[in-house]
Amino acid sequence: MKHYIGIDDDMFIRGKTPMTKKEIRILTMAAARLHDDSVVLDVGAGTGSLTIEAALAASDGHVYAIEKNDAALELINANCQKFNVGNVTVIKGSAAASMEDLPPLDAVFVGGAGREMPAVINKAARLLKPGGKMIINCVTVESQFTALNALRAREDMTYDAVSVQITRFNKIAAYHMGQALNPITIITCTKSFIDIVGGISK
Amino acid sequence: MKHYIGIDDDMFIRGKTPMTKKEIRILTMAAARLHDDSVVLDVGAGTGSLTIEAALAASDGHVYAIEKNDAALELINANCQKFNVGNVTVIKGSAAASMEDLPPLDAVFVGGAGREMPAVINKAARLLKPGGKMIINCVTVESQFTALNALRAREDMTYDAVSVQITRFNKIAAYHMGQALNPITIITCTKSFIDIVGGISK
Amino acid sequence: MKHYIGIDDDMFIRGKTPMTKKEIRILTMAAARLHDDSVVLDVGAGTGSLTIEAALAASDGHVYAIEKNDAALELINANCQKFNVGNVTVIKGSAAASMEDLPPLDAVFVGGAGREMPAVINKAARLLKPGGKMIINCVTVESQFTALNALRAREDMTYDAVSVQITRFNKIAAYHMGQALNPITIITCTKSFIDIVGGISK
Amino acid sequence: MKHYIGIDDDMFIRGKTPMTKKEIRILTMAAARLHDDSVVLDVGAGTGSLTIEAALAASDGHVYAIEKNDAALELINANCQKFNVGNVTVIKGSAAASMEDLPPLDAVFVGGAGREMPAVINKAARLLKPGGKMIINCVTVESQFTALNALRAREDMTYDAVSVQITRFNKIAAYHMGQALNPITIITCTKSFIDIVGGISK
Repeated sequence: MKHYIGIDDDMFIRGKTPMTKKEIRILTMAAARLHDDSVVLDVGAGTGSLTIEAALAASDGHVYAIEKNDAALELINANCQKFNVGNVTVIKGSAAASMEDLPPLDAVFVGGAGREMPAVINKAARLLKPGGKMIINCVTVESQFTALNALRAREDMTYDAVSVQITRFNKIAAYHMGQALNPITIITCTKSFIDIVGGISK
Repeated sequence: MKHYIGIDDDMFIRGKTPMTKKEIRILTMAAARLHDDSVVLDVGAGTGSLTIEAALAASDGHVYAIEKNDAALELINANCQKFNVGNVTVIKGSAAASMEDLPPLDAVFVGGAGREMPAVINKAARLLKPGGKMIINCVTVESQFTALNALRAREDMTYDAVSVQITRFNKIAAYHMGQALNPITIITCTKSFIDIVGGISK
Repeated sequence: MKHYIGIDDDMFIRGKTPMTKKEIRILTMAAARLHDDSVVLDVGAGTGSLTIEAALAASDGHVYAIEKNDAALELINANCQKFNVGNVTVIKGSAAASMEDLPPLDAVFVGGAGREMPAVINKAARLLKPGGKMIINCVTVESQFTALNALRAREDMTYDAVSVQITRFNKIAAYHMGQALNPITIITCTKSFIDIVGGISK
Repeated sequence: MKHYIGIDDDMFIRGKTPMTKKEIRILTMAAARLHDDSVVLDVGAGTGSLTIEAALAASDGHVYAIEKNDAALELINANCQKFNVGNVTVIKGSAAASMEDLPPLDAVFVGGAGREMPAVINKAARLLKPGGKMIINCVTVESQFTALNALRAREDMTYDAVSVQITRFNKIAAYHMGQALNPITIITCTKSFIDIVGGISK
C-alpha cells in the first residue's frame, strides 16, 4: 500500500499538548527522506503526530518516541492505537538520558528538548548513520539560537534552516479570513559520510 | 500636550468585537498624517480603538465613527468616556448610507465595509479633501481584492498596499515564544490635488 | 527505487522564469497524493520544477505540462533532459485551450492561469477523476480571489487554502539572517466522488 | 510645523548599506515617543534613515549617530544635508566605545551592534533617563537572542518584542503581487523610574 504524508490535524486524538501542524509535518517528513525500513527517533514527541507519520512511512522500520510528560505519553499511545501502528516504542524520560541505548538511526526529529538541546544534538549526531537526517522544529527564540549555535560549530553535519509561517483561510459566510499559525523554524541537518574523528565512516 | 500614537491594546475596553491591534493602528495613524484640527471618519469603527487614537491626535478636530453593531457601539462610547475624548460623533448605521451628510474629510479609516466596500470607497473619494488620506484595513481575501480592484480603476486617487504580519514574543519561563497575529492588508490612498471631473481642485 | 519529494532549487536549470520554490513544491506534491501511475497536468508549468517532481513520483504514469512562454518551454525541456524523465508531454499554448484533448486526470497543478483561471478550474473539474486533486498556487491578489471565488460556488469540489511564507536563514559570517521568500497561497481542491450532474460517479 | 513619521524609502540617498524600511521606522519611532527636545542616540545608524526621522521629530533636541563603516558615514552625512537637519552629531567608531561621553538620553535606537550587543545594552541602560526608551531592531537569529537574553536578566528595564513581516504589493499589469521584505524583530525597552542600585532615580 502506498503511504502519503500529511495527515489532517483533526485526525489525531489531541489534548492540551501542542501538536506539530500538518504543513510543518509535511515539510519535516519530506526533509527526513524516510524509506520503508528506516529507524527513526522522535524526541519530545508531544501528541505523537510525527511519530505516527514516521511509523506509517517506515512500515518495515521502527520509531522510538521519547516524551517526559504523562498527558502527552497517553496521547501518543492513544494515537498509536487509533492509527494501528505496531512499530513504535514509547520511552518515558528526559530527552538526552533516554537516548542512551538506541540503535543507529536513519532520522531524528527534535520537537522539544529545552535546556537539553545541545546534549540532544550531540547524542543524535553520534546515533545518526552517515547521510542520516535530523530535523529540529523550534518554537522559541532560545531553541532556535541554541540549535543553530551548536550546529554551526560541528564538522560532522551540514544544515540549513527556514522559518515557516502558515496562515489558514477560514470560510466565514461569503469571506475567506486569514488565521495565522505560530511561526516554526525548521532546521534540517545531514550527518556527513565522513567520520571526522576516525576517518571514512564505516 | 504632546500626543503619541500606539495605545497599548489592553488599555481599551474590549468585548467580542475584533480590535485593530496596536502595531496596525500605529501604521494606520502614521499613514493618515493627521494634524491638530483634522476631520476624520472611521467606517466600521468596531471597538473604537482607531477612533480614540484619531480623536486624541486631532484634538482640535473631529472624528465621525460609523458602526452598525450594537455591542460595538457600546464599546466605542465606553472607550470615548474612558479616554475622555469629546470630539467624537458616533453614528449608528450601515457604512455607505451613514456617509451622506458628512463634511469634507482629511482622513478616512475603513475597517469594515463588507459588500459596501465599493460604495464606501466612492463616497470617501468624494468627501476627501485634496491630499486627504484613506486607509483601508482588510482582513479577508474578498475585501482586499474588492478594495484594490475598485482603486485600480480610479484616476482621482493613488494608493499602495502592504500586508503586515506581526508575531508577538510571549515570555514563558526562560523562553520567548512567537505568537502570530492574523495578517492585515493596509491600503493607503491619497486623494489627488487634481479634480478629474471639474479641473483643478479648489 | 524510492522517490523523494523536495528537489533542491539549484538542481533545476533556471532562467528568468519564476520557479516554484522547494518548500511550496513539497506542500503541493504532498497535497496531490500521487501514486506510481498517476496522470498529472501542470498548467503554467514555468521552469518545470513541479512537472519534474510529478514525473519522478508518477514514474509509471504521465505528466502533461502546458506553457505558452517560449523561454519557459525551453527550460521545461532542458529540465526533463537533465532529470532524465521520459513520461512528460510538453504542450505549447494558452491554458484553457490546451486542456481540450487530455485524458482523465488524477491531479492538476495550476501555477499560472491569469485571466483564464475560471475556465481552467472549470475544465480541470471535468477532467479530474473522482477523488482527484487540483492544487492552485497563487502569487497575486487577483488569482487568489478569482480562484477562491470560483471554487466557493462549486458543488463538485471541496477545497481549503493556506498562505505560506517561508524565510530562509542565510549564513553570513557568524550570523543567520532571515531572507523572506514571497508568500504563496496554496489552494487544495478535491473532486467529489458524487457526480452532481449525472448522479453517482462511475 | 507639524512633523510626520514615515518618510518614503526612496526619499533617502542610498548605497549598498542596508536601510531600515519605512514600516519598521514608523513602528520604531512610535515606540520611542520622542518629544520636541529629545536627546536621541542611533547606534549602527547605517543609511541614517532613523537618524533623520529622529532629527526631524526632535527638532529642538539632538541626535547622535554612531557608525563605523565609511560608506555608511557618507550616506548619513549626505542624508543630513538632503533633509537639512542641523541637530545631528555623527560619530565614527565602534558602538560601545563611542558611547562613552554622551549626555543622558531620552531614546536609543540599536540597529547594528554585532558582538557588542550586550555592552551596548549595558551602556544604553546607564545613559537612558528614567522612562527613556531603547528600541533594538534585529535582523539575525544571534542579535535577537543576545538582546533578549541580556534584557531578561535586567531589573532596570522592562521590554517586549515583536517580529514584523511586511509584504508589499507591487502593481504588475492588472495584478498585485506580494513581495516580501525580510522579517525584523523590534524589541522595545523602557528604563525603570526606580534606580535599582542607588534607590529612587533622580
